[in-house]
Amino acid sequence: MKFTAEQIAGMVKGVVAGNPQESISTVSKIEEGTPGSISFLANPKYTHFIYETRASIVIVNNDFVPEHPVNCTLIKVESAQVAFGKLLELYNQIRNDRKGISPQAFISGSAKIGDSPYVGEFVWIGENVVIGNNVKLYPQVYIGDNTTIGDNTVLYPGVKIYSDIVIGKNCMFHAGTVIGSDGFRFAPESEGNKKIPQIGNVVIEDDVEMGANCTIDRATLGSTIIRKGVKFDNLIHIAHNCEIGENTYIAAATGVAGSTKVGKNCLISGHVAMAPHVTVADGSMMGGQTGVSKSLTVPGQAYLGSPAMEVSLFRKSYIYFRNLPKIVERLEKLEKKLI
Amino acid sequence: MKFTAEQIAGMVKGVVAGNPQESISTVSKIEEGTPGSISFLANPKYTHFIYETRASIVIVNNDFVPEHPVNCTLIKVESAQVAFGKLLELYNQIRNDRKGISPQAFISGSAKIGDSPYVGEFVWIGENVVIGNNVKLYPQVYIGDNTTIGDNTVLYPGVKIYSDIVIGKNCMFHAGTVIGSDGFRFAPESEGNKKIPQIGNVVIEDDVEMGANCTIDRATLGSTIIRKGVKFDNLIHIAHNCEIGENTYIAAATGVAGSTKVGKNCLISGHVAMAPHVTVADGSMMGGQTGVSKSLTVPGQAYLGSPAMEVSLFRKSYIYFRNLPKIVERLEKLEKKLI
Amino acid sequence: MKFTAEQIAGMVKGVVAGNPQESISTVSKIEEGTPGSISFLANPKYTHFIYETRASIVIVNNDFVPEHPVNCTLIKVESAQVAFGKLLELYNQIRNDRKGISPQAFISGSAKIGDSPYVGEFVWIGENVVIGNNVKLYPQVYIGDNTTIGDNTVLYPGVKIYSDIVIGKNCMFHAGTVIGSDGFRFAPESEGNKKIPQIGNVVIEDDVEMGANCTIDRATLGSTIIRKGVKFDNLIHIAHNCEIGENTYIAAATGVAGSTKVGKNCLISGHVAMAPHVTVADGSMMGGQTGVSKSLTVPGQAYLGSPAMEVSLFRKSYIYFRNLPKIVERLEKLEKKLI
Repeated sequence: MKFTAEQIAGMVKGVVAGNPQESISTVSKIEEGTPGSISFLANPKYTHFIYETRASIVIVNNDFVPEHPVNCTLIKVESAQVAFGKLLELYNQIRNDRKGISPQAFISGSAKIGDSPYVGEFVWIGENVVIGNNVKLYPQVYIGDNTTIGDNTVLYPGVKIYSDIVIGKNCMFHAGTVIGSDGFRFAPESEGNKKIPQIGNVVIEDDVEMGANCTIDRATLGSTIIRKGVKFDNLIHIAHNCEIGENTYIAAATGVAGSTKVGKNCLISGHVAMAPHVTVADGSMMGGQTGVSKSLTVPGQAYLGSPAMEVSLFRKSYIYFRNLPKIVERLEKLEKKLI
Repeated sequence: MKFTAEQIAGMVKGVVAGNPQESISTVSKIEEGTPGSISFLANPKYTHFIYETRASIVIVNNDFVPEHPVNCTLIKVESAQVAFGKLLELYNQIRNDRKGISPQAFISGSAKIGDSPYVGEFVWIGENVVIGNNVKLYPQVYIGDNTTIGDNTVLYPGVKIYSDIVIGKNCMFHAGTVIGSDGFRFAPESEGNKKIPQIGNVVIEDDVEMGANCTIDRATLGSTIIRKGVKFDNLIHIAHNCEIGENTYIAAATGVAGSTKVGKNCLISGHVAMAPHVTVADGSMMGGQTGVSKSLTVPGQAYLGSPAMEVSLFRKSYIYFRNLPKIVERLEKLEKKLI
Repeated sequence: MKFTAEQIAGMVKGVVAGNPQESISTVSKIEEGTPGSISFLANPKYTHFIYETRASIVIVNNDFVPEHPVNCTLIKVESAQVAFGKLLELYNQIRNDRKGISPQAFISGSAKIGDSPYVGEFVWIGENVVIGNNVKLYPQVYIGDNTTIGDNTVLYPGVKIYSDIVIGKNCMFHAGTVIGSDGFRFAPESEGNKKIPQIGNVVIEDDVEMGANCTIDRATLGSTIIRKGVKFDNLIHIAHNCEIGENTYIAAATGVAGSTKVGKNCLISGHVAMAPHVTVADGSMMGGQTGVSKSLTVPGQAYLGSPAMEVSLFRKSYIYFRNLPKIVERLEKLEKKLI
């Protein structure tokens, strides 16, 4: 898709300074600008780049006055940053604007699909599935029986949703993510261990985003619950019967074991491991590779280490850990003096 | 599917107390009971819930005598826990009872498929594949050439099995799991490194279960072996030429590097990392995030820390780690006295 | 496929000693040799196995003279190791030699596919995709719009490549790997957080190999870059705008957070976690579970611990960590003497 400076100025309510017919088909950073791309200048530290950039169009603030000649066409707006953000959103929408139901998808007779759907090739939709309006199911997605999916939700290629799952509106799950696999529970028996049937489901509220190749297990009974506004990075594991509180963010490769409850507005880094049956207070923060073996009860506190310690205490102890050889030397010196 | 109290009493050899025509279509926990669901009461601590639950039917022990009026229909059995477990299994069987071979699957001419199969849409089955009886291949599964799969094994949507793999009976692999990808081995050469062909396979014995998005690499030569009764949670990585012993359990996000042998009946928590070419004794236990850099030779011992220490020793050392600032203060006090 | 000793001798320029019509259809280690397999003997420590092996054919060095009778047919070559390696490569090529475009694949009208392709069933190829010569796309692969793929690249079953991605020549990605999912970036807003559109792409240079179920995020703007010769094991996470330098090796379950730059020729073990916006010097080495929270600026240095320490310092400190209970005892003794 190509757009002219004039068209873009219309989208972002700006004024063209330069060639209104200059056209672009992609976006770039100003310092990496390429012909045929649009960029923006908001941070004064980057001003010098505008005299060298090869970008064809640059969005600038109204008050920008070049001190040297520029080669690109300018679009002047109230806030270059806001206008560029708006443009990226528009671009993203256009890029991902797929519609229609492929004849190469498999759709069970009892499934109901809302208005303006995209159902790509090799998608599989089971019995009694209910899908809202404007939902996008990319190729090779699987939706098990009785699952419901809210309006505007996007499932990227190869996402697998098991049966009986409830997914809210405006959710987005990236490729390879699996929702509703069995919880990891076995009962000891005289003859080896026996699988406990995993009969529960997963309930995902509105505005939840998950990265690629995440795995969210169904509950043994009841529901594994992901609350409104939760955001997951890639390769996140959430076990059976967990609950992740509203607007909590979790970075890549973190895992939460069975029946653990994580509060609202938590910020959890990557490679964090949480034990089963613990509770994490609202607003908790965890650094990378934190290990949570007990409940964390103080709201808004930050942690590091495995097992987790309050972050400043961990850092203090770790400085001494680095110095242990010297500390022991000092001890030896004292011992010698006292013998 | 709907069932009446009378029908369920027949399945679990119980007696109805209440409306025999009361019907349910799902299951719930007694404390979260919803109309149209069945629950159970076994733990006396939960007895008070039976007077408030909105579940339509509750299975109770024969000796349960209500002290207040109950709104639900009761089914009395010898053991409510056992009966409910049996019911869940039946429910699970019915829910997952798919049969038939989809005309939208791709099946090579030389593949052999046993009795009562389920082969879903967009499944791919290669040359000389041999599949036992009652095997379920959910949509979008891939089975490479020459692979064999034993009776009653279930592969959930999108599982990928490479060529020449051997899988036993009664196995279950969840969505997105990959069996037989190349081992991670390269030979140093003058011009960069060279891939070593990964010619071996993976042998998985009977009764093995794997969660979602696991990755099990084929051997360089010979076999990567997963023994009978092994259970894996989600996102587990097993490298080339590993062997995992009988009935060992591994929790999510754990990885085992090349040629490592893990014994029988081990219990391994999540986010554990094992180095290549080590041996882990039978019955070893590891806490979350344990790092195994050397062979662990004492059977039945528990570990924590990275590198791994015997668990009680690690805990003792970690208490002192938390107290390092105070310990150093004490040292400083002594130093001052002695100067 | 069956091959006779005579045919194999031709492939590896060797001489048959024994039955030239002896045939094999698989390969084995000499100590695990099975009838119908070929093995090799190079390491003198393994010589005794040649008198017991059940392998049908064994490749040996020209100077090998049996001291006892052998049951297998021998092929004598200049270097048994080199010849066997060559044979494995040939075997691997034959095994993976698929050709043709399936009528059950979905290919957009504007996509261009080079010579000698393999495009398996249920593959999805978007608009304006450009695919080089000798590329293999196994079943259930997804290639988004505008993506380009270089000659000889192999994508195993279920690999998902998003739109606008650039992939070089001679690459190999294993099953379930996802390239180009959105970066994990959200802007704080009065009403919850807002997704920042992820408009950039991923650029993967030549000779890159990735294991199964890896996730490589697209850049917010610009490109996430994986340089020539990089090798990834399974379940690797690379975030938006990262750059991984030439010939760097990363073992399983490691994650690199946003905008981090890893140098050339690094050797990074499994379960390593790297913070965002850090730089790692060329030739850095990291042990398992290392945590990188700051830039590592010394080329060629080795690290361990979380946060990372130079490896020998970490090991020294860790010995004292193990001994902390005894160290504190010594401190107490001194304190008693001084009171």
